[in-house]
Amino acid sequence: MTREHRKAVVLVSGGLDSATTLAVAKSKGFECHAMTFDYGQRHKIELQAARRVCRAIGVLEHIVVKIDLRKWGGSALTSDKIPVPDFDPNMKSIPLTYVPARNMIFLSFALGWAETLGASNIFIGVNSMDYSGYPDCRPEFIKAFQNCARLGTKAADQNTRIKIHAPLQNLDKASIIKLGASMGVDFANTHSCYNPSTEGRPCGRCDSCEIRRKGFLSAKMDDPAKI
Amino acid sequence: MTREHRKAVVLVSGGLDSATTLAVAKSKGFECHAMTFDYGQRHKIELQAARRVCRAIGVLEHIVVKIDLRKWGGSALTSDKIPVPDFDPNMKSIPLTYVPARNMIFLSFALGWAETLGASNIFIGVNSMDYSGYPDCRPEFIKAFQNCARLGTKAADQNTRIKIHAPLQNLDKASIIKLGASMGVDFANTHSCYNPSTEGRPCGRCDSCEIRRKGFLSAKMDDPAKI
Repeated sequence: MTREHRKAVVLVSGGLDSATTLAVAKSKGFECHAMTFDYGQRHKIELQAARRVCRAIGVLEHIVVKIDLRKWGGSALTSDKIPVPDFDPNMKSIPLTYVPARNMIFLSFALGWAETLGASNIFIGVNSMDYSGYPDCRPEFIKAFQNCARLGTKAADQNTRIKIHAPLQNLDKASIIKLGASMGVDFANTHSCYNPSTEGRPCGRCDSCEIRRKGFLSAKMDDPAKI
Repeated sequence: MTREHRKAVVLVSGGLDSATTLAVAKSKGFECHAMTFDYGQRHKIELQAARRVCRAIGVLEHIVVKIDLRKWGGSALTSDKIPVPDFDPNMKSIPLTYVPARNMIFLSFALGWAETLGASNIFIGVNSMDYSGYPDCRPEFIKAFQNCARLGTKAADQNTRIKIHAPLQNLDKASIIKLGASMGVDFANTHSCYNPSTEGRPCGRCDSCEIRRKGFLSAKMDDPAKI
């Protein structure tokens, strides 16, 4: 790989998907520049987890970008007026924790940073198996974003064209956990709950807690994160 | 038009293109929600122009979103280390005033707000005739963004799908000025210079000043903005 082809911007939220994604990027020989968003999320405690994950796995640099998605709310994660719903196994529609255009915004910032760094790779931990049904986690969206990024940046020529890597896209939560564990990811560093107590204790009732619990159960592993 | 189809988010920078775009949106009967970015731009004075433009043309609401694109710089507009170049008629490459992924970031925020408002229209004043050669002003990019927006949002069904309007796309600067003037836009409210003095006086030497000067000349109109 050329230097340009080795550089990557990796979106790291502090959850277990992005921790595994970062480990995948590292294992493939990418120089990782990690990016985290302080976007007004209810579970701001995940920023501490993102710092632990980046320190443990190792990155060239880690920046936390502050943006205010509470300005218009519209999600249980960015508005105090919308409570975080309990996990509902019969839920068919897009849940209230969906944050409008969040991945588009995150990927756009990653793209701006990548272009400035001269990096042609962006890693994101989306997956469309065990997730909450968010439209911006689907492979069609990621592919469309990549196409858009290639048309809207300086790096329009063949050699430096942007690639969006979503290595977890087709994995279920148990497979992600097993993959991360096989690469030595310490999941004790990660945080998943959408509605933690002020001390950072997971609620054990939201989608994210339930998906995590089932994932570890199905992977036949104990969740090392303190409850 | 249904209520949903009447609502629009309009990106307003304070320049003459976005002022004309806002006037176009209003003239077509859209309820306009204006969005401006305080992104660390050298010509922050344009925020005052954006406020004047919104007040003069009339919007339902106007929000200024603060994001920090100086975090990584990479452009003469967001880094003090890169001086704003003088206009160069022989310039063939993308100029130093290009801000990596700026329109992608702006459109992503507009998309998030539009989705929250239940609006299916976004207006942006890009044009690919008399401009500085930025890749994120090209029609292919706008089309790709629209496609991406439709795939990555809740509004995936036919009735509420997002439309990105770029009414100035194929107009040159003189035509934009004539169009704006015909709708009563007061260009005295607008600001274009990339490198103004601390009092807001245009430099008269950057791309943006030169393109504006030539536009008014070619439209056979006086520029009412105080110099």
